[in-house]
Amino acid sequence: MTAAATPYLIGVDLGGTRIKVLALSEDGSERERRVAGSDGPDWAARVRSLVDDLHARHGPSLGIGIAAPGLADPTGRCIAHMPGRLPGLEGLDWTGHLASPRPVPVLNDAQAALLGEVWRGAAVGQRNVLLVTLGTGVGGAVMCDGHLLRGHLGRAGHVGHITLDASGPPDIVRTPGSLEDAVGNHTLGARSSGRYHDTAALATDVVRGLPLAVDLWTRMVRDLAAGLVSLINVVDPEVILLGGGISQAGDTLLRPLALALDQVEWRPAGRCVRLATTRLGDVSGAYGAARQAQLLLSSPIS
Amino acid sequence: MTAAATPYLIGVDLGGTRIKVLALSEDGSERERRVAGSDGPDWAARVRSLVDDLHARHGPSLGIGIAAPGLADPTGRCIAHMPGRLPGLEGLDWTGHLASPRPVPVLNDAQAALLGEVWRGAAVGQRNVLLVTLGTGVGGAVMCDGHLLRGHLGRAGHVGHITLDASGPPDIVRTPGSLEDAVGNHTLGARSSGRYHDTAALATDVVRGLPLAVDLWTRMVRDLAAGLVSLINVVDPEVILLGGGISQAGDTLLRPLALALDQVEWRPAGRCVRLATTRLGDVSGAYGAARQAQLLLSSPIS
Repeated sequence: MTAAATPYLIGVDLGGTRIKVLALSEDGSERERRVAGSDGPDWAARVRSLVDDLHARHGPSLGIGIAAPGLADPTGRCIAHMPGRLPGLEGLDWTGHLASPRPVPVLNDAQAALLGEVWRGAAVGQRNVLLVTLGTGVGGAVMCDGHLLRGHLGRAGHVGHITLDASGPPDIVRTPGSLEDAVGNHTLGARSSGRYHDTAALATDVVRGLPLAVDLWTRMVRDLAAGLVSLINVVDPEVILLGGGISQAGDTLLRPLALALDQVEWRPAGRCVRLATTRLGDVSGAYGAARQAQLLLSSPIS
Repeated sequence: MTAAATPYLIGVDLGGTRIKVLALSEDGSERERRVAGSDGPDWAARVRSLVDDLHARHGPSLGIGIAAPGLADPTGRCIAHMPGRLPGLEGLDWTGHLASPRPVPVLNDAQAALLGEVWRGAAVGQRNVLLVTLGTGVGGAVMCDGHLLRGHLGRAGHVGHITLDASGPPDIVRTPGSLEDAVGNHTLGARSSGRYHDTAALATDVVRGLPLAVDLWTRMVRDLAAGLVSLINVVDPEVILLGGGISQAGDTLLRPLALALDQVEWRPAGRCVRLATTRLGDVSGAYGAARQAQLLLSSPIS
């Protein structure tokens, strides 16, 4: 026990391939980071072991929060719905599993990432924020009027599953012609007749000006802009944070996207939504989980 | 002054053609209703006069709330943005205009209607509610986790302005191929090659089985279902309330809509969103305005 006198929080992000556990000071500065694989049946024991280890080294934490894939239960104590991956996650009560003296809040990973970005990332102090993660699929989360939206089943913010083509084919959750299928990497092979399989290669060819790449990119940007204005008109953010692999294209994405939004965004009294990329990278979920635990310290209702 | 001893609230709904002013008991039961036209330049004086009249007859109210078209200011004291109609509404401070000793909250009319339905209408006690009004245009509002969404510019819940066709023509706020243009009455003439101009006539012919009417209705229902699942996946309601003239078709709308949702709705663990029609009709906004005033009595932050 080396620093028992300094209070700290623990944020856990449970990913499909990795477990990230962060010890954070109350102001959100990082004190220690531990990473392990999440494969195999004993992933839950591994999380417990990483948390126990931090407690042994730093003394008891103020609180622990969990970010995980799937839909969190309304009680916020477990993931209620996550078919297919991380066997045993559904219904696992984290307060009991980690033997925590305080309730351990559980958030959907994208919702946690948004909370992390608002705490210490690209949207510090803002109250109306839309996060859109552009990767294999398209995910996200919404903060509106300072409130992180969870919804009836914990599903709020699944912004990839909005339609861009009502007569299009169903996506993984049956949304016709969805934003996820129009923009996510998982359809890039099909959209490019097999020419591209990851956005980094595509973005490189866009910068080079290759016509096929530019065409694909232009269509993707147009579709993304249509999706973003739909979301703008429903949840009215001040800023949209773009995360995920595709957002690493930076200005190659942001510049044409801003031009596309110039054409389709509703701008009352000329006011437009700010675009930015996320800042915390792949630890945003762990930050948000720790932040949620911190918020619980001052209020039993988060 | 006939009933000064009984506390009551005043809800004002300021519409494009009518002003509705309700005196409501604290439990939401209606004590008196006054209606006047909202045409002409003196509509604001008319609201003041109706309110003064209720005060003269019933004694001072506990609080007054206003529902009005346009985007409410973040302070909730005025409508900040409402071009074109009701000259003088933008920026009018209602607390001052009505000489109220307490702040008079101002809500967007659809947001107020949702609050009214949650208080005394079709969604009493529910915390995750989506209102979609299907009339000349398509509007709505969202309550998520018990919180009525307003957003950065007060625009949250403009659910008619989501895209159903990213390559479609722009609607009134530039959304490409919007739900409003696919479903709202204002495009029915164009969609039916001039055959229909109001949904009541169309619905009658749907019941009769006329092929053109059935085709138009089927497409409208499919488009509406695609829009609703987009919204379900973003704000995760427990119930969707359908209001406006088109919703008066009742089961002629609800039955095929439920079947269409069977095809496209994401139903985690088999759970589906309930569909219902609104109950308070054209006074839902006044109810919600009064309710907002009531909520302010117990908390300065609503």
